[in-house]
Amino acid sequence: MRSFDIPQLRADFSFSTPIQLRFSDIDGYLHVNNGVYFSYFEHARAVFLYQVAGWDVLDVGTVVGRIEIDYIRPIHLTDQVEALVKCSRLGNSSFDLEQVLLGKDSTGKEQVYATCKSVLVSVDKSSMKPVPVPDPFRQKLASS
Amino acid sequence: MRSFDIPQLRADFSFSTPIQLRFSDIDGYLHVNNGVYFSYFEHARAVFLYQVAGWDVLDVGTVVGRIEIDYIRPIHLTDQVEALVKCSRLGNSSFDLEQVLLGKDSTGKEQVYATCKSVLVSVDKSSMKPVPVPDPFRQKLASS
Amino acid sequence: MRSFDIPQLRADFSFSTPIQLRFSDIDGYLHVNNGVYFSYFEHARAVFLYQVAGWDVLDVGTVVGRIEIDYIRPIHLTDQVEALVKCSRLGNSSFDLEQVLLGKDSTGKEQVYATCKSVLVSVDKSSMKPVPVPDPFRQKLASS
Amino acid sequence: MRSFDIPQLRADFSFSTPIQLRFSDIDGYLHVNNGVYFSYFEHARAVFLYQVAGWDVLDVGTVVGRIEIDYIRPIHLTDQVEALVKCSRLGNSSFDLEQVLLGKDSTGKEQVYATCKSVLVSVDKSSMKPVPVPDPFRQKLASS
Repeated sequence: MRSFDIPQLRADFSFSTPIQLRFSDIDGYLHVNNGVYFSYFEHARAVFLYQVAGWDVLDVGTVVGRIEIDYIRPIHLTDQVEALVKCSRLGNSSFDLEQVLLGKDSTGKEQVYATCKSVLVSVDKSSMKPVPVPDPFRQKLASS
Repeated sequence: MRSFDIPQLRADFSFSTPIQLRFSDIDGYLHVNNGVYFSYFEHARAVFLYQVAGWDVLDVGTVVGRIEIDYIRPIHLTDQVEALVKCSRLGNSSFDLEQVLLGKDSTGKEQVYATCKSVLVSVDKSSMKPVPVPDPFRQKLASS
Repeated sequence: MRSFDIPQLRADFSFSTPIQLRFSDIDGYLHVNNGVYFSYFEHARAVFLYQVAGWDVLDVGTVVGRIEIDYIRPIHLTDQVEALVKCSRLGNSSFDLEQVLLGKDSTGKEQVYATCKSVLVSVDKSSMKPVPVPDPFRQKLASS
Repeated sequence: MRSFDIPQLRADFSFSTPIQLRFSDIDGYLHVNNGVYFSYFEHARAVFLYQVAGWDVLDVGTVVGRIEIDYIRPIHLTDQVEALVKCSRLGNSSFDLEQVLLGKDSTGKEQVYATCKSVLVSVDKSSMKPVPVPDPFRQKLASS
């Protein structure tokens, strides 16, 4: 199992948002279903874009072009979970986000549950075609 | 549309727990999908049983026998949502929970989104047959 | 446990649609999560309205005002599931649907898993206010 | 946008399974939520392992170690969707699956919606530690 330097991760990612687990997130293996991690990362991305860049994804379009998730260890219902997010590349109409899902298990020990890299594309919501990342967002993402 | 006396509701329900919305909760109508209310109520029930009665539903069995949900108004992504829960009837192996989903919209106005009544049944997790509500839980639910 | 006359149910409901279970529908109790039943009923309602009445709910608005679900027995991953739907009341802007979730378990035995009654309201998609059920849909629902 | 040779894909993947869309899969962008693709791929993986290798993932453990999804084009509610699956690498306790989500839009045109590569790990369900892929499964996966 890969090991992580959690204080270093916290230093590298200035943005963090808490994730509330739901009973229905638990699957037949008694841990959070792998697909639900996607919802956690998606939620954290939307909060990051809104709070850091003022980007309301229901208003100004963005779609996911690619996502990679590495699953490190299972999440249990009583774990305290949070997601770290940062922008790691800023292209013309696309940009990359890196995310870490980490938290405390019931003994209080900090753990990394999963990491995620996603490629997002700024789109026109009518045509769904790529458009340049709007300037006000670009500047805030660049300095995030 | 029905009207609610929110201060009275807060007086009637001593238990409340916050609900975190997720971007994926929003459906094609741009509000929270009706089915997701079920997950909110289920989550609040599990938190209520655990915090008020010490009942861990992953360990000691309980199943939903019946559920009724009245939808009052739509929930939007930026609303601040919480769920009120109380035990309104305590039978031998079954009991009723009443729940109210309420919160603040983006203008800060308090609203009731939905109400829920559910019949829960205490079951043996191996046989899935009804069993009496265990005594330690019974006393705590009765005084909740 | 309530018993059902399945041939009589099939005679009473002329509409049926198959439901495909997904692995992620299974929860920590190793059966389909109670909240997922809601998605099954919602899916079957949308298919019923589209196939029977020509009503595309993404285009012409309808919202759920109230839902009641009685859970009869758990659904397992290998069960073959279908939903029966009929319109049992047709008001001015609201109407009632009755639904039965039934299917075959792995031994081929037919079972009823749950029943559902929902109150739907025809709405204007811009204002989300109730409007009369559009006439073409009304006639087809009445004769369903 | 990448282009795909769909007849060649069908020749390369001998296994295909249909995916039933649900109304609740549609999100605020009026297409299938990106996270739901994960459930489609997970469902198709479970069906593939069961039908091709006789591997019941609720009984004999397997966990996802890594997943990569490339999103090619949006899925709409009326599209007819299926998933292709093949085993592209078979290690000692881990193996890779490749998947393609494709289907017909409302005009009957065939499209690729997304591709997926996942690394699965065979685990002991009690300890959740990696174990060798059981021999009967190994042989069937190798010849799939």
